[in-house]
Amino acid sequence: MIHPAIEPALKECAAFVEDALNEALPEVQGPQGRLFEAMRYATLNGGKRIRAFLVMQSGRQFGVDRRALAHAAAAVECVHAYSLVHDDLPAMDDDDLRRGKPTAHKQFDEATAILAGDALLTHAFALLAGQETHTDPHVRCELVARLAQASGANGMVGGQMMDIDAKGQLTDIGQITRLQRLKTGALISFAVDAGAIMGKASAGARHALSNYAQELGLAYQIADDLLDVEGDPVQMGKAAGKDQRAGKATFVTILGPERARAQAQLLADQAAAHLEVFDEKADLLRGLASYVVNRRA
Amino acid sequence: MIHPAIEPALKECAAFVEDALNEALPEVQGPQGRLFEAMRYATLNGGKRIRAFLVMQSGRQFGVDRRALAHAAAAVECVHAYSLVHDDLPAMDDDDLRRGKPTAHKQFDEATAILAGDALLTHAFALLAGQETHTDPHVRCELVARLAQASGANGMVGGQMMDIDAKGQLTDIGQITRLQRLKTGALISFAVDAGAIMGKASAGARHALSNYAQELGLAYQIADDLLDVEGDPVQMGKAAGKDQRAGKATFVTILGPERARAQAQLLADQAAAHLEVFDEKADLLRGLASYVVNRRA
Repeated sequence: MIHPAIEPALKECAAFVEDALNEALPEVQGPQGRLFEAMRYATLNGGKRIRAFLVMQSGRQFGVDRRALAHAAAAVECVHAYSLVHDDLPAMDDDDLRRGKPTAHKQFDEATAILAGDALLTHAFALLAGQETHTDPHVRCELVARLAQASGANGMVGGQMMDIDAKGQLTDIGQITRLQRLKTGALISFAVDAGAIMGKASAGARHALSNYAQELGLAYQIADDLLDVEGDPVQMGKAAGKDQRAGKATFVTILGPERARAQAQLLADQAAAHLEVFDEKADLLRGLASYVVNRRA
Repeated sequence: MIHPAIEPALKECAAFVEDALNEALPEVQGPQGRLFEAMRYATLNGGKRIRAFLVMQSGRQFGVDRRALAHAAAAVECVHAYSLVHDDLPAMDDDDLRRGKPTAHKQFDEATAILAGDALLTHAFALLAGQETHTDPHVRCELVARLAQASGANGMVGGQMMDIDAKGQLTDIGQITRLQRLKTGALISFAVDAGAIMGKASAGARHALSNYAQELGLAYQIADDLLDVEGDPVQMGKAAGKDQRAGKATFVTILGPERARAQAQLLADQAAAHLEVFDEKADLLRGLASYVVNRRA
């Protein structure tokens, strides 16, 4: 089911972006040392880097330089890492474990976790505004504006707010879809769009990639909900059954696991189908759609 | 001591920027309504808007359009508001009162306060990257990069981390100066620089303004420390004596109130002196230096 080239390509990309992040977030001695340590702890942790992969592969369709793409990919991963640090806080989802390690506020303390998240978010914009990301300042401004839109009150943060407000009260699939389009979908869409913006893609290509990203984002989320019910906590590096204990309505609690699995697969197929305008260079993007719904962690 | 035109000019600027913020942070119905409400609560609260004033007055030296400056001024105020919301959290300074009203986490809840802060920070970058702020994308990118630098781990957030780590342990004026240059100075410096960046100021003018901002920022902080000891809680809208209760070393605990007051006045005079290359259009910036050390709240 999973394209054989996907996992090696993800691993290669993760190592490449890890290097970029390692450079972007240096080890620092002295009074701010602990803050940088927390930022590195939250970010350099061997995640799958699916968002970074999307930036890299999307940009590849338009021949964008890999090192330039790595800056944008690092920015997306900084935003993703910050969102996890803040979402894990006691006042939010109150999680102790993330990717098999203590969450940032457990490893450090709450104040450090809040500030490290703030600094990671801030650093993402510094990365996008830097000349290494693109020689054309119009492109850099568009990246900044799009990331702000995707991650702010009308994007990721808005989705997290809805999720916290709605705990247990959502009953229909439309509401959950809207929530997840913001909470996880918006940043995934940004990642795909970032490569297209950097490649000055045509409106048609951007539209196709945008449709791909929307379906992929939902498929990814449904797979996540399924893993929460059926996944192996050791492989996932985090507790399973969290949604159920929190009384949270998810795609799985509403559709049941069978229909949810079928829906995720359908969305993955649709996502891949949106890429028909692209040539074989898009095979890894196509394959990623299957990967996200068939992954074990 | 206070230039008679300063207070009316500050009031006029505050009203102008309040309008810009009101437009930038609309009232929103529906599932994200509470998040926008918290963002507005934290931002549209009748602050003195000294940072906004600095953007406007700095840009005025170079003939920058007022409406364009208002966008940058709104961005700085969003960052300032976010920093107060996060600093007030129980895990940080644990404050209940801010400008005479309950702090954001008291009025709403901790999760909402964290997310509203995140969204305000994010929105600041959206404002700076928008075409309404400047027609030249080089300028917009430079604003984004400078704000990220000033407000991130090597700026404001780094200063707050040092402040939390150091509670009560700082004993010399050099350490406190370094801490405050980051915690409050960096954003004040950005505000002054933003006007100069937008006005494509010469290196000499930027350098003079940068020196002005550095002295002004320290003068402002010493005055703040004095108000904490001597100020009227009703006029200030927040509790006094906080630093002392927290066992915090400040300019006042180390220098004593008399020497601290003299030092603040000296810095204010030095700040104004850096502006000698400017004409009478800079009188309000000169006057502001006296204002910040002689204000009552």
